[in-house]
Amino acid sequence: MGGEPTRWRLTLEYDGRAFCGWQRQPADRTVQETLELALRQLFGGEVITCHAAGRTDSGVHALGQVVSFSARAPRDPERVRLGLNTLLPPDCAVIEAARAAPGFHARFSATGKTYRYLVLDRPDRSPFWLGRAWWTRPRLDWGAIDAALALYEGTHDFSSFRGPRCEERSPIRTIERVERREVEPGLHAIEFSGPGFLRYQVRIMVGTVLEVGMGRRSVSSVGEALQTRRRAAAGRTAMPEGLYLVSVRYPPELWRPVEGG
Amino acid sequence: MGGEPTRWRLTLEYDGRAFCGWQRQPADRTVQETLELALRQLFGGEVITCHAAGRTDSGVHALGQVVSFSARAPRDPERVRLGLNTLLPPDCAVIEAARAAPGFHARFSATGKTYRYLVLDRPDRSPFWLGRAWWTRPRLDWGAIDAALALYEGTHDFSSFRGPRCEERSPIRTIERVERREVEPGLHAIEFSGPGFLRYQVRIMVGTVLEVGMGRRSVSSVGEALQTRRRAAAGRTAMPEGLYLVSVRYPPELWRPVEGG
Repeated sequence: MGGEPTRWRLTLEYDGRAFCGWQRQPADRTVQETLELALRQLFGGEVITCHAAGRTDSGVHALGQVVSFSARAPRDPERVRLGLNTLLPPDCAVIEAARAAPGFHARFSATGKTYRYLVLDRPDRSPFWLGRAWWTRPRLDWGAIDAALALYEGTHDFSSFRGPRCEERSPIRTIERVERREVEPGLHAIEFSGPGFLRYQVRIMVGTVLEVGMGRRSVSSVGEALQTRRRAAAGRTAMPEGLYLVSVRYPPELWRPVEGG
Repeated sequence: MGGEPTRWRLTLEYDGRAFCGWQRQPADRTVQETLELALRQLFGGEVITCHAAGRTDSGVHALGQVVSFSARAPRDPERVRLGLNTLLPPDCAVIEAARAAPGFHARFSATGKTYRYLVLDRPDRSPFWLGRAWWTRPRLDWGAIDAALALYEGTHDFSSFRGPRCEERSPIRTIERVERREVEPGLHAIEFSGPGFLRYQVRIMVGTVLEVGMGRRSVSSVGEALQTRRRAAAGRTAMPEGLYLVSVRYPPELWRPVEGG
């Protein structure tokens, strides 16, 4: 059990519906606590603290959340993955486990993230997308939404698009890519990629363009919201149930799995 | 409340996980009972009996189940749809409601059906497809599966592919179309269309080709199973969780919504 601890990274999928988000909280079921309990079992009782690339909010899902931790007990990566998938509850799964470079930190080493927001635009609620996409009964104008989404691309002051208690110093963020496509009839995926996001930024960006799609505000008002730098100038924060953390980007030299252990 | 009863048809979606199938049973939660209770509320206490195009088994899902019934109280189709979606539980929704031709019967008027079976072929279980696709840890040979699936096309004696207590007289059935495609990475959809299917036929056809994909039987053994006309010559019945009733076909003159009422 002695020696230097090994640095690990995991890639996780989770259905956020029954989790109060990533971050450990006293009385609630969180992904962090669920994962740390499973890791403790797997690593022979060692108390392990995890860090996630994105501290997803209550109800938000993940397709490629990245987590880092250190552990002393030697374990084989394949067995870590399989063991965790046995120990974890059905709504959380590990799709990759690897020994990481010593300095690897899921959050601080990240150089970019992709988020997806799913909107179900059809007259009736869906038994299959309940809690996994935001359903709107009124039809949306997707042409207007696309025009508004394009305004987010590039580097802007996103002061109007940050939630309360956002800890980031600078409100300046870069959106490298915004893409919207209809992935199945009536189900629209809006994807945002960039080096980093402010608290609630994706959900406020989405909530604002959905108001455009409903005809409640103009396309140009989204540009004005960026200019104005006041939270009230942007739209409502979209529901967490449509949001997915899709993937996290790292420098290749930090992401490459480390041999031995 | 008097006069001739109106004939109605509904198109339903349901997530089969928490239902013991379509058909009413004394002690279990079924789609039929759930729907009939909601209809009774909607039609002012009238006792209504529904018939479904396909009596889906426990755990089987529907994207386009069709149901017919008669009711005396006059109702507007739009309000029937909206009202049912308020009364029904979250795992069942109505996507169409219309007045039907007087002779319309969801089961006996049907001239064809399409079923889809979802297989998740990846190393780890998925939080998102749990109970909605059949997950297999061992990799599958999809080339061999495609070759085996092609053998089902056309008209055959499907005696080897019918479940116990199948009530159909003739084991001869026609598969008009079999199609397999990877709808997202690792998620494969196998679709079957035909005028009619025997009890468990789709699940036994799928279970048999999955054994081919796992290398447990040869492609030619599927042709032999068709020839042999003994249940033991085919493979196991695939789990219900991967099966979806996608759509039902009717003669256009019976499907056309009827005005007034």
